[in-house]
Amino acid sequence: MLLRDIGEFGFIERIAGRVARAGAAAHDPRIVLGIGDDAALLDLEGPDLVAVTTDAMLQDRHFRLDWLTPEEVGWRAASGAISDLAAMGASPAAVFCSVGLPPDWPVEDADALLAGVASACEATGASLTGGDVISSDRVLIDIMAIGLVPRGRQLTRHAAAAGELLAVTGALGAPAAAVSALEALGPGALAEHAAIRSRFAHPEPRVAAGSAIADSGLAAAAIDISDGLVQDAAHIAERSKLRAVIEAERVPIAEGCEALARALDVDPLLWALSGGEDFELLVAVDEADLAALQALPEVAAIGLTVVGRLEAGEGAVALDAGGGEIALPRGGWDHFAGQG
Amino acid sequence: MLLRDIGEFGFIERIAGRVARAGAAAHDPRIVLGIGDDAALLDLEGPDLVAVTTDAMLQDRHFRLDWLTPEEVGWRAASGAISDLAAMGASPAAVFCSVGLPPDWPVEDADALLAGVASACEATGASLTGGDVISSDRVLIDIMAIGLVPRGRQLTRHAAAAGELLAVTGALGAPAAAVSALEALGPGALAEHAAIRSRFAHPEPRVAAGSAIADSGLAAAAIDISDGLVQDAAHIAERSKLRAVIEAERVPIAEGCEALARALDVDPLLWALSGGEDFELLVAVDEADLAALQALPEVAAIGLTVVGRLEAGEGAVALDAGGGEIALPRGGWDHFAGQG
Repeated sequence: MLLRDIGEFGFIERIAGRVARAGAAAHDPRIVLGIGDDAALLDLEGPDLVAVTTDAMLQDRHFRLDWLTPEEVGWRAASGAISDLAAMGASPAAVFCSVGLPPDWPVEDADALLAGVASACEATGASLTGGDVISSDRVLIDIMAIGLVPRGRQLTRHAAAAGELLAVTGALGAPAAAVSALEALGPGALAEHAAIRSRFAHPEPRVAAGSAIADSGLAAAAIDISDGLVQDAAHIAERSKLRAVIEAERVPIAEGCEALARALDVDPLLWALSGGEDFELLVAVDEADLAALQALPEVAAIGLTVVGRLEAGEGAVALDAGGGEIALPRGGWDHFAGQG
Repeated sequence: MLLRDIGEFGFIERIAGRVARAGAAAHDPRIVLGIGDDAALLDLEGPDLVAVTTDAMLQDRHFRLDWLTPEEVGWRAASGAISDLAAMGASPAAVFCSVGLPPDWPVEDADALLAGVASACEATGASLTGGDVISSDRVLIDIMAIGLVPRGRQLTRHAAAAGELLAVTGALGAPAAAVSALEALGPGALAEHAAIRSRFAHPEPRVAAGSAIADSGLAAAAIDISDGLVQDAAHIAERSKLRAVIEAERVPIAEGCEALARALDVDPLLWALSGGEDFELLVAVDEADLAALQALPEVAAIGLTVVGRLEAGEGAVALDAGGGEIALPRGGWDHFAGQG
């Protein structure tokens, strides 16, 4: 049996199962939360819990250097990991960056890539604190981000309750729109679509909103939209042993997507439902707490829109206005099996 | 200018300089120690300081799958990062592992690799707590290890003083001997050299000794031998603004090296002086404290041998019994520039 036969998620489940059976993490009181959420949570006896996440990206699988500058590649890689911290309600503190670079790469490109990592860190109050450098044929970036969340205030995938609403920050679809346009029209495709390009090249992880939501105590479950709205809703549903229902007509679609979709003759809703890498937050909230959550200044600044609900059952579906299930490509990218 | 022109260490110096100028890490009181030691040190307001290190390894650059089993590759990768924690006097707590694997790799090999990582963690009291999985053409492992060291007891590269002795745990040269034999004679070269093969394939990071040394307060400066004794002594010397002098005839050479050296008709001393990946600890200690340090049970169990001293000046040299300088290949491997 080969890795492509079980896929990336299948292999991660095997690792998680093995670690659980071996029992080390299960029996170590310092490991509050191990494999299976946006970040692990450690109890190192300080006032806050320590959230830790890693995110690895490889040239031509996760990014293309004819689509993004080295600075943008570095920014996106760091922002993806920082977004995982935001999804736990954690404030980033320290970021470590292992890079693999070709020996024949220009030094100024390598500098720019690291500058992008450092800028993304500084924009969210974190410091680039260490890492490793190796040579590799293709550019590789592995980001490890460490953040802090007040004890008991952490946002996790498994803490949602039946009947809660699902609400998303900001608006979705721009990164998927960018990729569609770049694939269809080539590297110049976004020259006249600045808003889309900016959301794709310089995403802003929702650190302030995540921290405010965690501190408020008004919500307990969240995830960041990295695999696509419906798939990420399915992750919350699975860990909380529930079913997620997304009402497609309520999903906020990012500025510029409609125009680009017309040009490409596609439906922008699919970008918003299954595109991924939006780095917005999907939060489960009791209806009674929704208005208070939306009124938090850090949340109000970017908006929080109800897009569905959680109920008894399993899985995740997106429904159209008539209540019919919308067929989606299997959300997200499986790194061993390819597009599902 | 290309990366190979400035080399790996040159690029790391550029990153460190840029981070220092940007000032984020410099002004964040949570960052006790940033780029430039075996691990970074964070102050997250708990009873201990938090040591963090990352170590990336790529197939055919850092390891060969015809020399080591997947389990051994995983064990060595985790042990290398854990050794960096030991060099700070930190006890490992949580390990994160990002792996890149070919989709056509057998699942049992992938399982074995992760089992090696998990075993190395458990052997030192740490838990494999998370990571990331991507597909890549060649096997890649990036380990991030987090440990704890009592506040004020950390071992660093910059804390050595002129006049202190340099002492090394255990004995050196076995991994370099293994590589020499494998290169000269092929994958079967170590069939009759079990001690050498074991030290190469299953190194044991000196966690217990490192913690005991840190807790004792008898030493303040240490490093692990990863680049080779003389080069690692040079790292301590550089950070402490001193000169390191290694007396070659005092260097303990690992069991089995002499026999293998005779078979290959080479001088085993060079393996011990410049080979690297020994994962022993090199400690700077005042002569008055040496006996007490050697008497710590965790240190006595593996031995601690004086191999030189630190004095005013800069750089590092190895001297023969007559006081002449021994010419060494530039220690260690530069990942961009190749063997120096």
